[in-house]
Amino acid sequence: MGIPKQSVINMEFQLEEGIEILRQTPSAINALLSPLSSAWTERNEGPNTWSPFDVVGHLIHGEETDWIPRVRIIINDGETRPFEPFDRVAMFEKSKGKSLLELLDTFSNLRKANIQELEQMNLTPVKLEKRGTHPELGPVTLAQLLAAWVVHDLGHISQIVRVMARQYGEEVGPWSAYLTILGQ
Amino acid sequence: MGIPKQSVINMEFQLEEGIEILRQTPSAINALLSPLSSAWTERNEGPNTWSPFDVVGHLIHGEETDWIPRVRIIINDGETRPFEPFDRVAMFEKSKGKSLLELLDTFSNLRKANIQELEQMNLTPVKLEKRGTHPELGPVTLAQLLAAWVVHDLGHISQIVRVMARQYGEEVGPWSAYLTILGQ
Repeated sequence: MGIPKQSVINMEFQLEEGIEILRQTPSAINALLSPLSSAWTERNEGPNTWSPFDVVGHLIHGEETDWIPRVRIIINDGETRPFEPFDRVAMFEKSKGKSLLELLDTFSNLRKANIQELEQMNLTPVKLEKRGTHPELGPVTLAQLLAAWVVHDLGHISQIVRVMARQYGEEVGPWSAYLTILGQ
Repeated sequence: MGIPKQSVINMEFQLEEGIEILRQTPSAINALLSPLSSAWTERNEGPNTWSPFDVVGHLIHGEETDWIPRVRIIINDGETRPFEPFDRVAMFEKSKGKSLLELLDTFSNLRKANIQELEQMNLTPVKLEKRGTHPELGPVTLAQLLAAWVVHDLGHISQIVRVMARQYGEEVGPWSAYLTILGQ
């Protein structure tokens, strides 16, 4: 799994291809986590890190307050109104008392509604170049926001599997030399 | 997604918990990849790297020649007979002319049969401490082999999502600063 970092082949952002990923994320995470015992889904990587359960809560909060609300701001207000800052750790409070299956279900429903809203916006290539203002990053385009949403999904799937893999960091014995996910 | 590497909490290997992951991997990869266009599933990270399609072929070859055959060697021959070396890149030839859906289906069927065989072995904690000889790593236990199988699955799910995420490395613009999966 060695990666020559300099030779990445880039895809141009295309709305339909981006939506393909956004659409599969809930079912992918569902397939990954719903059959597992809490031994896998509730352990994290140590103090101030997230369990798979926490990650799903974070994704829910993103559906509610981050991605589509920012798309709306770009469409309606352009660069004049900066995005609201996103609370990355709101889920520690919000997920309390909920089950993983409940969270998975909520995420799936919110994502479905958000994709529907996105599709109804009829975003043309010209609209995708419209700009907004990120509170920290400055000027960003709608296409960059949507590409970031896609990569954010994939990043959190990667995080979920890494957190679980590292629980067996000691158990693999000498194989740790080959299993690069343990050293990430 | 910062990770304090020193504070990982380790789970002890338990056969039933390990099998939970082994069992969900085909459906997780299926959910991740089967709805996607080939733009996502056939791109890699540059020369000598793997696409998601290649990863599924590699997992198939592992089912056929690596994990369960090594379990059998440990059970039947212990340390006296070293494992066959595993060909990590056999899939480049073997997958030729096949579709991704065909590969996903093959992986799913092989995994199902292998888990069934594993369960029928009635591996007690004592048997799990039995040793074999890895051609490069030397003495390893059956529990370590099975834990490595689990982590290997998770590592390749991580690889699949990383390969796809990095296709948008340029497209996310300034968000690349926040999306750590792009720098892995």
